[in-house]
Amino acid sequence: MNGPAEGGLDVAHLFLALAAILIAAKLLGELAERVGQPAVLGELVAGVLLGGSVLGVVPSTGAAGEMVHVLAELGVLLLLFEIGLETDLREMFRVGPASLAVAVVGVALPFGLGYAYWAFLPHPASGEENVATAAIFVGATLTATSVGITARVLSDLGRMATAESRIIIGAAVIDDVLGLVILSVVSGVAAGASITVLGILQTLAVAVGFLVVAVLAGRFLLPRLFDVVVRMRVRYVLLVFAFAFALGLSAVASMAGSALIIGAFAAGIILSGTNQFDTIEREVRPVAAIFTPIFFVSVGASVDLRLLDPTSPAARGTLAVAAVLIVIAVVGKVAAGWAAPWLPMRRLVVGVGMVPRGEVGLIFADIGRRSGVLSAEVFGAVLLMVMVTTFIAPVGLKALFGRSPATGPAG
Amino acid sequence: MNGPAEGGLDVAHLFLALAAILIAAKLLGELAERVGQPAVLGELVAGVLLGGSVLGVVPSTGAAGEMVHVLAELGVLLLLFEIGLETDLREMFRVGPASLAVAVVGVALPFGLGYAYWAFLPHPASGEENVATAAIFVGATLTATSVGITARVLSDLGRMATAESRIIIGAAVIDDVLGLVILSVVSGVAAGASITVLGILQTLAVAVGFLVVAVLAGRFLLPRLFDVVVRMRVRYVLLVFAFAFALGLSAVASMAGSALIIGAFAAGIILSGTNQFDTIEREVRPVAAIFTPIFFVSVGASVDLRLLDPTSPAARGTLAVAAVLIVIAVVGKVAAGWAAPWLPMRRLVVGVGMVPRGEVGLIFADIGRRSGVLSAEVFGAVLLMVMVTTFIAPVGLKALFGRSPATGPAG
Repeated sequence: MNGPAEGGLDVAHLFLALAAILIAAKLLGELAERVGQPAVLGELVAGVLLGGSVLGVVPSTGAAGEMVHVLAELGVLLLLFEIGLETDLREMFRVGPASLAVAVVGVALPFGLGYAYWAFLPHPASGEENVATAAIFVGATLTATSVGITARVLSDLGRMATAESRIIIGAAVIDDVLGLVILSVVSGVAAGASITVLGILQTLAVAVGFLVVAVLAGRFLLPRLFDVVVRMRVRYVLLVFAFAFALGLSAVASMAGSALIIGAFAAGIILSGTNQFDTIEREVRPVAAIFTPIFFVSVGASVDLRLLDPTSPAARGTLAVAAVLIVIAVVGKVAAGWAAPWLPMRRLVVGVGMVPRGEVGLIFADIGRRSGVLSAEVFGAVLLMVMVTTFIAPVGLKALFGRSPATGPAG
Repeated sequence: MNGPAEGGLDVAHLFLALAAILIAAKLLGELAERVGQPAVLGELVAGVLLGGSVLGVVPSTGAAGEMVHVLAELGVLLLLFEIGLETDLREMFRVGPASLAVAVVGVALPFGLGYAYWAFLPHPASGEENVATAAIFVGATLTATSVGITARVLSDLGRMATAESRIIIGAAVIDDVLGLVILSVVSGVAAGASITVLGILQTLAVAVGFLVVAVLAGRFLLPRLFDVVVRMRVRYVLLVFAFAFALGLSAVASMAGSALIIGAFAAGIILSGTNQFDTIEREVRPVAAIFTPIFFVSVGASVDLRLLDPTSPAARGTLAVAAVLIVIAVVGKVAAGWAAPWLPMRRLVVGVGMVPRGEVGLIFADIGRRSGVLSAEVFGAVLLMVMVTTFIAPVGLKALFGRSPATGPAG
């Protein structure tokens, strides 16, 4: 019960560190919102401040570091589970061709540009051993629009009801799925699967196959199961079964060669088809609210601020890479606004709305860093890219939408 | 992200084990309720089944074992935090002398009898080295009525509005506080503090002092702080600050020589004085619902079923000890029903209502087992005592109350 008696893990110090992580995340999240930015930006900054290169509050090594890592995994699992729960499969199919075109171009273009930059153009790590693997990672970090950030920005601006917003949200959701499929490929690559076309197709087949089989079987079976579960009397039985299902499907996804968070996302999509999904969603939210910030703070904490010191040569390398990545990230997504020429819409609004990268890009970068494929310098550059694109969207959308009156109530 | 790459901890297998723990806890909790017993009983049985002596699903060693231990600690922290939040300090003072008398006698008598049995009478571990320390632990496990179980039983029977129920609930709450103070003494003893009267008084002073100072300062400061926090915009800021406060105060309590869960309980009592305590309580509940079963299942998992096999001599020892503990547990609490002779009430009802032991007794036994003061045999006997007393109360109260019509709606 009491302190470090048990196997070297000091529970009291771990709990203090967690308390500091949560309070810093909320304080800096609040600060970010007050200056008109999404809270997730503040949580990343909180991580940088609490991390090893500044205050050193977030444990990164030993048993405590492993505990924080597992709690952060629980956080990202809950986040993707929540996004899955909020995903309406029918609505996803309904938004149709325009969203799909925007999504595909918005994923393919930044991926291709990022891959080409890393594989063929000069950069600080030129000549490294696994250049193709690293190039896949760099490309992957540029792909997925953060549906959470985008939706939050549109709703904050009171523009959820516009045609552009519907297309953006649809594309961002498809984007997330595409991103998750890419994640599977990338996870396989990180685990050492050789990069042959056949290998990639196999990994892709496993990822898509897992998603399709899990979602089809799950959407058929789980609503029937949960109609039984809901008749049980013990308290919070729906929530606990739903959470256990997310944990279990995540574990199975990982064991089947896909990724934990694909399982969590699939679990969410599956349970969004139950009659009880609103109760589950309402009860999962406070749990996610506690664990999700631990993920973002621990991602921020892995940034070494010294890499951004412009007086050191290494930092200049990071900044140079970040500058190129930011240009690719913005150009690739803005161009996607012109991907559905048959539809009348404000293409610049759609393009800018797709710019923010978030969770999924950070997850790619994190896997790359942990598996040693991406250096700390490149990880820092990706984080900088995520932060800057996250900044650009609210400012840009506010400027673009500012030209016409709002159609819905603000925030 | 994916499996065992990281420092030996296989996240996927850990998540599968957690899913199994949660589902088993709910299924057996449901079964327990269906046969008229409290759900916690089913969770303990689920733990026994998933534990090392039957299925071996709950990890008990290595990094995964440590993770489950920390998650179980989070569970018991959340449970005590919730009980603290539900505690109305004024109501506690108002139920007054009768509850206090019942509580004090109901703590002192079983403790004294348990201590005397272990220190002076023959039992299977007679002649052991730290007999006084072990006797304190055995006495301590017999003290605290489970306020959760008692309240649940009374509400299930529709008798919450009777005078007897008010006295029982008041006494059970005071009991919990007394139990937590004893817990501090016992934790100090387990950590190796010598058992002198002065030492016990010091530990007691630290525990009571910590509670009094924390609650007084906290009840003054926190309502003001939370009136500011509630004006923040980020989502679930109240919940996250409240949870961080519970984590932080638990850590401080442990570092100050008290126990983690005393800090969690104090945090709950303190926050019950804020204007936002109803929001906090509502949002904490789903989080506690997920983590609390992990505690009860992991407690159950530490029972070695072979110790209860009546064909083995060691098991006969455990069963003999359990029989004595059960007699002491029942007699000690039933006698407490006569502790307030100046008040007209159905003393047997009050006494039987005080019989169920739960959380706190298990926590004592767990600390004793982990620190090596209690053998696995005695731990098994305590668990048996907790299970049997938990069985006795609903059956007994139903029989006693059955003689007169219910005064309130059934549960």
